[in-house]
Amino acid sequence: MAEQKKLVSEITSMDVDFAQWYTDIVKKAEMIDYSSVKGCVIMRPYAQALWENIQQALDGMFKETGHENVAMPIFIPESLLQKEKDHVEGFAPEVAWVTHGGSEKLEERLCVRPTSETLFCEHYAKIVRSWRDLPKLYNQWCSVVRWEKTTRPFLRSREFWWQEGHTVHATAEEAMEETLRMLNIYARFAEEWLAIPVIKGEKTEKERFAGAEKTYTIEAMMHDCKALQSGTSHYFGDGFARAFGMQYTDKNNTLQYMYQTSWGMSTRMIGAIIMTHGDNEGLVLPPRIAPTQLVVIPVASHKPGVTEKAQEIYEMVKAAGVRAKIDLSENSPGWKFAEYEMKGVPLRLEVGPRDIANGQCVLVRRDNREKTVVKFEKLTEKIPALLQEIQDALFQKALKNREEHTYTAKTLDEMKSILTEHTGFIKSMWCGDLACEEKIKEETGMPSRCMPFEQEHIADVCPVCGKPAHKMVVWGIAY
Amino acid sequence: MAEQKKLVSEITSMDVDFAQWYTDIVKKAEMIDYSSVKGCVIMRPYAQALWENIQQALDGMFKETGHENVAMPIFIPESLLQKEKDHVEGFAPEVAWVTHGGSEKLEERLCVRPTSETLFCEHYAKIVRSWRDLPKLYNQWCSVVRWEKTTRPFLRSREFWWQEGHTVHATAEEAMEETLRMLNIYARFAEEWLAIPVIKGEKTEKERFAGAEKTYTIEAMMHDCKALQSGTSHYFGDGFARAFGMQYTDKNNTLQYMYQTSWGMSTRMIGAIIMTHGDNEGLVLPPRIAPTQLVVIPVASHKPGVTEKAQEIYEMVKAAGVRAKIDLSENSPGWKFAEYEMKGVPLRLEVGPRDIANGQCVLVRRDNREKTVVKFEKLTEKIPALLQEIQDALFQKALKNREEHTYTAKTLDEMKSILTEHTGFIKSMWCGDLACEEKIKEETGMPSRCMPFEQEHIADVCPVCGKPAHKMVVWGIAY
Ligand SMILES: [Zn+2]
Ligand SMILES: [Zn+2]
Repeated sequence: MAEQKKLVSEITSMDVDFAQWYTDIVKKAEMIDYSSVKGCVIMRPYAQALWENIQQALDGMFKETGHENVAMPIFIPESLLQKEKDHVEGFAPEVAWVTHGGSEKLEERLCVRPTSETLFCEHYAKIVRSWRDLPKLYNQWCSVVRWEKTTRPFLRSREFWWQEGHTVHATAEEAMEETLRMLNIYARFAEEWLAIPVIKGEKTEKERFAGAEKTYTIEAMMHDCKALQSGTSHYFGDGFARAFGMQYTDKNNTLQYMYQTSWGMSTRMIGAIIMTHGDNEGLVLPPRIAPTQLVVIPVASHKPGVTEKAQEIYEMVKAAGVRAKIDLSENSPGWKFAEYEMKGVPLRLEVGPRDIANGQCVLVRRDNREKTVVKFEKLTEKIPALLQEIQDALFQKALKNREEHTYTAKTLDEMKSILTEHTGFIKSMWCGDLACEEKIKEETGMPSRCMPFEQEHIADVCPVCGKPAHKMVVWGIAY
Repeated sequence: MAEQKKLVSEITSMDVDFAQWYTDIVKKAEMIDYSSVKGCVIMRPYAQALWENIQQALDGMFKETGHENVAMPIFIPESLLQKEKDHVEGFAPEVAWVTHGGSEKLEERLCVRPTSETLFCEHYAKIVRSWRDLPKLYNQWCSVVRWEKTTRPFLRSREFWWQEGHTVHATAEEAMEETLRMLNIYARFAEEWLAIPVIKGEKTEKERFAGAEKTYTIEAMMHDCKALQSGTSHYFGDGFARAFGMQYTDKNNTLQYMYQTSWGMSTRMIGAIIMTHGDNEGLVLPPRIAPTQLVVIPVASHKPGVTEKAQEIYEMVKAAGVRAKIDLSENSPGWKFAEYEMKGVPLRLEVGPRDIANGQCVLVRRDNREKTVVKFEKLTEKIPALLQEIQDALFQKALKNREEHTYTAKTLDEMKSILTEHTGFIKSMWCGDLACEEKIKEETGMPSRCMPFEQEHIADVCPVCGKPAHKMVVWGIAY
C-alpha cells in the first residue's frame, strides 16, 4: 500500500489544479514524453495504441462511406500556399519554413504542411477531367505542423497527428451533403466510441476555417466545464476551385467548377478522452477504444495454482475476444492495482487462493470501483456486459456534467453574472453581427462555440444590441 | 478492342526501355502523381492500398515479436543530429533544414528527420533506468526526407514512407539476436507475401549505414537483372549509447551502456513488386498483397440476367474471403480487361449469357493468361487454389530469373567479360580490403551487394589483389 500511495500521490488533484492534473496524467500514464524540440511531443506506446484504435474505427467508417486513402507530400511550395487568399492569411503566420536542402539554398521556400487543401486542389485539378471522375473522396492520415506559441500535449502542439479528408463533387448540393455526412460520422464516433457527448452545429463566420464558406463542428464539454472543439467539417463551395482552376466537363460537355469539402479529426481526441473521463487516480478509458480492456492480476501468486489459474482465465478471456492483459511481474498487487488505474484499464480481474477455492474471481470497475464476484463459468458472459455498462455509464456521466453546466442567458449582464459563479456553456440568442459576438468574447472571455443544429428559442432579441435575434449560439471558454 | 489497344500501347515495352516502362506503369496504373515539389510524389489510392496491406502484414509480424509502435517528432535539432559523428556525416548533406517558424528565425535549425536514431537515443536515455526496463522494442510508421539529387518514384524520392524499428537491449548478444530476427522477418515477408526471393547477407564496411557496427541486408534481383536493396537491419553495438549517454543499472547495480539496433523497410518495396513481377501489359500483383485479388466482369451485360448473375457471384466470392471487385461500368469488356491487367489484378472472372446457360464462368490468370472454365459451385474452392498457384508461380519465376542471371567469377577480367554480355549478380571471393572492393566497383560499375550468409567457395584468392580470400561477395548494379 505504501507503493500504491506513493504512485497516486504523484498526481495533482484535478480540483486543486486541473491543468497540472492533466499534465501529470499524460506523463505518469506514459502517454507522452517531451522532445528537445519545443512543442513537439513523443507519442509513447500507450498513446499510440489508443490512437491506432481511433484510426481503425474512423478509417472503417470512412471506407464504408466510399472514401479512399492517399498520401500527399509533406511540403507545400510558398507559391502554392498563396493561391487562395484567405487560406494563406490564415496559415502563413504559423508555418515552419524549409529554406535549405543539404547545403543548398532552395529557389523557393517550402512550408511543412499545416493542412493540405492546396496540395489536394492541385492534384484534383490534374486528375479530374469529366463528370465521370466525380466525386473524388480522398483522405489521408499524417502529421501536420503549426508553429503555435503556447503548446499542451494533444491539445495544441507544433506537430500533431490527424486525418484530413478532402473531397470534390460535381454540385454544391453533393458537397454540402458530404460536409454534413462527415460531421455526423465524427459525432457518432465521439459518442459511440469515445463516450463523449457532443453538440453539433455551425461555426459563426468569425470562427470559420480559413477559406471555407461554412464550417461545422462538434463541441464537447470537458470535466472542468471548458469546451473542446473536437472535429470540424468544412464546405468550400467553389472558392478553391476558382483559385486553382479545378474544372470538369459536365454531361452537356460544358466546363464547370468543382465543389469541395475538407474535414479533420486529430490526436486532440486523446486529450478529450483524458479530460472527459479521467479522475484523481488517473486515466479512465472507454472500453470500446481502450488498448487493454481488462487486466488479470493474481493475488498471493506464490501460493500453489494461483499463477496457473490466472493464466488460464487470461487465455479464456482473450479467446472470448476481450483485449486482455495479464501482469505476472514481481510487483505487489497493490502496486499493480494503482498502475492499471493510472492507465485507465476499464476492468481489473483479481484472483487469489480463496477465490479459486470458491470457483470465482473478482471484477473491479475502473470508473466507479464497483466490485462483482463472478463464477469462472460466467466470466465470458459477464465481462462483455460489464464493459458495455462502463461504456454507457461514462457517456451518461459526461452528458450529466454537460447538462448541469449549461446555462441560458438573455442579457450580457446575465452571462457575466453566471460566470462569476460557474464555468460552463451559456446559450443565448445572437443577432448575427460580428460586433456583438466580439463584445461577448471581450466581456466574458467566451468565444462562440457554434450555432447548434438543435435550436431553442431563448429570447426575441440579441443580448448585446437588443435587435431581433433568430439564432441561438452556445458560448464557452475553449481549449 | 480499339480502346484496349490504345490503352496498352501507351506503355513502353520493357525490352525497349525498362526505365520508361517503369515510369509508364506507375503513372498508368494510377499509383503515383507528381507534385509541384521536385522529387516528392503523391501516393494515389491504388498505391496507398497496396502500402496499407504491406503495413498490416509487417506490423502484425512486428507485434507478434513483441514490438510496440510510437510516434517521434518530425524534426531533429541540428545539435542532436550532430551527437554521433559518423551518423551526422552520413546524413547532414542530404537533409532539409527548417530555419523559420512563421515569420521568426529559429535560434537553432531543425532538420526534417532523414531517419530517427538520434530521437530514439534521446528518448531511451530518459526513459530507461534499470535492467527491468529492457529491452525496449519500438517501431514507428512515418515518412522521412532525404534531399536526393536524382529521384524515381518509390525507388528514390525526397520524401518516402517507411517503418523504422529502434530497439535497445541489455547485452550485445541480445541486440545482435534482434538485428538478425528482424532481417529474417524482412526476408520472410519479401518471399512469402511479395513473392520476391532475396539474398540475406551482411554489407561490407563501405556499404554500412552511417554509425552502424554491422549492417545486414536482403537483396533482390529485378526483372532487368539489377539489384534492389530491399530492407536493412543494423547493429549499433554501444556506439550511439556512448554518444548519447544511454545507460542503465544492471542487476548488480552497476551502470552499463545499452546495445542498440535499427531496421527499416519502405515504399521502395512497391517499386520492387513492379520491377519483379510486372510485364508489358502493366502491373502483376502477388495475390497475398493485392488490394483486389479478383475482378468480376460481366460480358454482354445487356442480356437478361447477366448483371444479376455477375453480382451474385461477386457477393459469393467476397463472402468466401476473397478481396473482390465487380466492374458494372459502361466501359466495354475489352477496355475493362486491359484496365485490370494494367492494375495487375491476379484473377479476372468473366461471365456471359452462354456461360450462365452452362452453369459456369471463366477465370483468367493475370500472370500467364491461362483460362480455366469453372462451374459456379466450384468457384469458392477453385479461386483460393488459383490465387495460391499464382503466388507460387510468381515466386518461382522471379527465382528462376535470379538463378539464370547469377554468375561466378574468379578474376576481375572474368567479371568484366561477363558484363559485356549480361546484366546480373556476380559472385566472387574478396580479401576484405576496401581497395579491392573499390577497384571492382570502379572497373565494373558494380558495388558489393552483400556477403551472403550462404557462402560458397569459388576460389582461394581475391580476384583483384590475388591475396587469400575467405569471403564470398555478391556484386551487382543497383537501383
Ligand atoms: Zn446583436
Ligand atoms: Zn583483394
